Amino acid sequence: MPAAMTKRDFLRAIGSAAGVAATYHTMSSLGMLGPQTVHADALDLPPGSGHGTRVVILGAGISGMAAAYELSKAGYTCTILEATERAGGRNFTARGGDVVREIDSRQWVDFDREDHLYANMGPARIPYHHRLILGYCKEFGVELEVFMNDNRAALFHNADRFGGEAVEGRRVTTDLRGYISELLAKAVNRNALDEDLSADDKERVLDMLVGYGDLNPDYLYTGSNRGGYRGDRVSAGLERGEPNDPLDFSELLRSEFWEYKLHFGYFLNQNPTLFQPVGGMDAIAKAFETRVQRLIQYQSPVLEIRKTTAGANVVYRDLRRGTTESIDADYLICTIPAPVLTDIPNNFDPSVRSAIASVAFVPAVKIGFQARRRFWEDDLAIYGGISWTDQDITQIWYPATGYHRAKGVIMGAYIWEDRPGQGERFANMTPPERLRAAISEGENIHPGYAQEIESGVSRVWPKVPFQKGGWPESYQPPPELLAPDGAVYFAGDQITALPGWQEGAVLAAHTVANAIHQRSATT
Amino acid sequence: MPAAMTKRDFLRAIGSAAGVAATYHTMSSLGMLGPQTVHADALDLPPGSGHGTRVVILGAGISGMAAAYELSKAGYTCTILEATERAGGRNFTARGGDVVREIDSRQWVDFDREDHLYANMGPARIPYHHRLILGYCKEFGVELEVFMNDNRAALFHNADRFGGEAVEGRRVTTDLRGYISELLAKAVNRNALDEDLSADDKERVLDMLVGYGDLNPDYLYTGSNRGGYRGDRVSAGLERGEPNDPLDFSELLRSEFWEYKLHFGYFLNQNPTLFQPVGGMDAIAKAFETRVQRLIQYQSPVLEIRKTTAGANVVYRDLRRGTTESIDADYLICTIPAPVLTDIPNNFDPSVRSAIASVAFVPAVKIGFQARRRFWEDDLAIYGGISWTDQDITQIWYPATGYHRAKGVIMGAYIWEDRPGQGERFANMTPPERLRAAISEGENIHPGYAQEIESGVSRVWPKVPFQKGGWPESYQPPPELLAPDGAVYFAGDQITALPGWQEGAVLAAHTVANAIHQRSATT
Repeated sequence: MPAAMTKRDFLRAIGSAAGVAATYHTMSSLGMLGPQTVHADALDLPPGSGHGTRVVILGAGISGMAAAYELSKAGYTCTILEATERAGGRNFTARGGDVVREIDSRQWVDFDREDHLYANMGPARIPYHHRLILGYCKEFGVELEVFMNDNRAALFHNADRFGGEAVEGRRVTTDLRGYISELLAKAVNRNALDEDLSADDKERVLDMLVGYGDLNPDYLYTGSNRGGYRGDRVSAGLERGEPNDPLDFSELLRSEFWEYKLHFGYFLNQNPTLFQPVGGMDAIAKAFETRVQRLIQYQSPVLEIRKTTAGANVVYRDLRRGTTESIDADYLICTIPAPVLTDIPNNFDPSVRSAIASVAFVPAVKIGFQARRRFWEDDLAIYGGISWTDQDITQIWYPATGYHRAKGVIMGAYIWEDRPGQGERFANMTPPERLRAAISEGENIHPGYAQEIESGVSRVWPKVPFQKGGWPESYQPPPELLAPDGAVYFAGDQITALPGWQEGAVLAAHTVANAIHQRSATT
Repeated sequence: MPAAMTKRDFLRAIGSAAGVAATYHTMSSLGMLGPQTVHADALDLPPGSGHGTRVVILGAGISGMAAAYELSKAGYTCTILEATERAGGRNFTARGGDVVREIDSRQWVDFDREDHLYANMGPARIPYHHRLILGYCKEFGVELEVFMNDNRAALFHNADRFGGEAVEGRRVTTDLRGYISELLAKAVNRNALDEDLSADDKERVLDMLVGYGDLNPDYLYTGSNRGGYRGDRVSAGLERGEPNDPLDFSELLRSEFWEYKLHFGYFLNQNPTLFQPVGGMDAIAKAFETRVQRLIQYQSPVLEIRKTTAGANVVYRDLRRGTTESIDADYLICTIPAPVLTDIPNNFDPSVRSAIASVAFVPAVKIGFQARRRFWEDDLAIYGGISWTDQDITQIWYPATGYHRAKGVIMGAYIWEDRPGQGERFANMTPPERLRAAISEGENIHPGYAQEIESGVSRVWPKVPFQKGGWPESYQPPPELLAPDGAVYFAGDQITALPGWQEGAVLAAHTVANAIHQRSATT
């Protein structure tokens, strides 16, 4: 980097020449995009720089609202067309009194009206390194609380293993570490790894394994109190007690708990610390909406999108007035999810049209249940976290809020096609059938479950109007969507390697806002 | 168990015959002491059963107050003698304006007066399976929030390894799992474990290791995005990016991070979910104190304890009146910590006196710092959790409360003699010297640390009057303290296998209260 060039000059130069994605890549390669500086450095929209340039934004989800918020602060004239009567997009929290609409059904949410009785039916957690969305939470004063993801009291369940009984996570993780350590220690002691380890390192590996797996002095795993004590009392008492017998290793291997489920908390987007806004994820959507509400035209589904010589034109239906309208823009930001966008008439480049058509969305399903008592806390000392099952419901989430209160809302199913057909099976049911099916499977994890459930709500994302799916299946967005097609810029989490994450939605918004600014400043 | 005997009858029979400890042991062995039932089943004090029996309790810590609360509800006439002017014992939260006294110093706490700016100088976390203390939190309406213990963004630091630079936990854990998996896969593929694994299990172990360690298709560990992406941007962006290069395995082994530090979050008392009361741990002490305040005689240090033919007699100093007083009791519950108790004149059985003298307490030290900004969040995306160092300060804790607010209180040292002499070194310093020493060591983990710290407070537990230490070093209390000596019952966490935990304090209180009731009902 030339000495006389400031960091910002340098990035501007690259940004103009090669697009914002390249800027990100370069910044990242140079190690200039620290977690501390992403929010500040990434967005480069000087106040007043917009000079009234007209930007039309399609979709009042997180991405669209973030773009409108930043661009309008910088002096752009923004309009958001939102197909529905609410902002937030997939950021959707169900509460008592809400009506949940799908293409062929309506559900009335019958939860009690208390602050902690809600279900985040879309995004539900924010990892600590999602600096952009956390930056907005800080800026907007959205109060956060820890989201429990990996709780060792939560359960693993496989209908065919351990007699079909759910096993506590603390036992599964402890025993697996024990067995892995014992096997590796045996191999080291049999000199099977002499070509890989120096004599010194062999000793250190053995010492390490004793701690890692809680092995006995003979390097054998015979159980560990890390998994809790025998009997139903988990804690030590007046005496330490005897640890549980270890779970059978062959049975553990056959349980397939060790398929990603057991390592899940080690994935980058799933490892602690994670957060949720107090009172529901839509606190973020509402914080954005408050700031851009004057720019949103609700109930205005898009009918047609055209690049024009001057920019872009959008034809939409104004459902409130019952009229069809047209709006011109210097720049257009399209956050409409690919499965919906692909059906909207447009004059995009054929390569862009195929790219849009190629983006498959996950047929995600969530089912929230209000329970009459917090049986998971009272009976099992499960405070937040996730139980796993090989049944279609895949997971049960326990609420990371309202601890010790009378009632609670659990997520009784979270399906994202771990096995093909799971989502489709639930999608083909009526809403009451979905609840019954999820209760029936939950009963195998928590005997007596059916008696605890008071009411429920489901969200089959492929059936949600103007969404048609959960999030892109692929972590690699088509490159055609990363570049503008004329004056049309694509946004939303769908153009990032963070599909389904609000961080992706914001990252896309910033990227596109920067790109529009760069282009606007140089033309 | 005879069919005609109820569970409670059976336990009463055992309880009378062999003492409450045996009851617990039996209940535990029979699997009758479920996590759901400990609180309810363990305590067996029918209302009105006390008939005014006089119980004197020494110490208004958690154990003494819990005993007084339960016994007085059951109709016992309780008096608590508390040496100091406050209740709570080692449950102590420092806030702006507090005076922290040690035997040879006084500190004025200079934190700002805001709800989230406090330091829990004693107990600071509550594991999910500590059902008794959590039961009281529920009963008393003490609001809880998650305490972050194992945060993968927090750091590991060894002055002699990795160039003395702190390394993120997500990298250390991910790489260690990767290397362990690669080594074990090699051993399996070299048939070194054929005598331990069936052919089927060999295949399953290999599949498992690919997931466990994120190995490549050749079963090699070449780095993983679980540890974050290269460059300072942790998250994926428009592209997924390149994972960090793995840390050198030999250097990792030499770092000794893998000594318990890395497995710490798998220990039973340290694994998630953990809690802290909102606003400070002393919310629990205050909740008890509110309920038993009328029974507490503050500023009444004990001078002498005597068994008598009718029960027990205690001579104490009433510091408020400047008089020496004497009180008789049918039963005495002594929660005074062993290092203090051993110096109080008594007529205990010689075996009991030696047992008391044998209980060594950990010379624990904590140092809290108020920082002018939450640099750990702003700069490093560390939200709660613990960084580890091989320096004397041992740990730095980041606050699991007040996220995103302007200032924060971190625990700049938590020393419990991981290496001999660490606590003593700090104990021999004046309070200002301790702060300087802890800042100097913290600077090696967080360059610029000194500039961030506004004020601090230290607590050297061996120098705290009427405490003289942190908690018993051994998890095995002397059996002599588990049985009464005449009418004198010993209590506090020191008689349990949960030393230093409030759960132990409550368990001891319940155990002793039950024992007094059993004896009182049969004599």
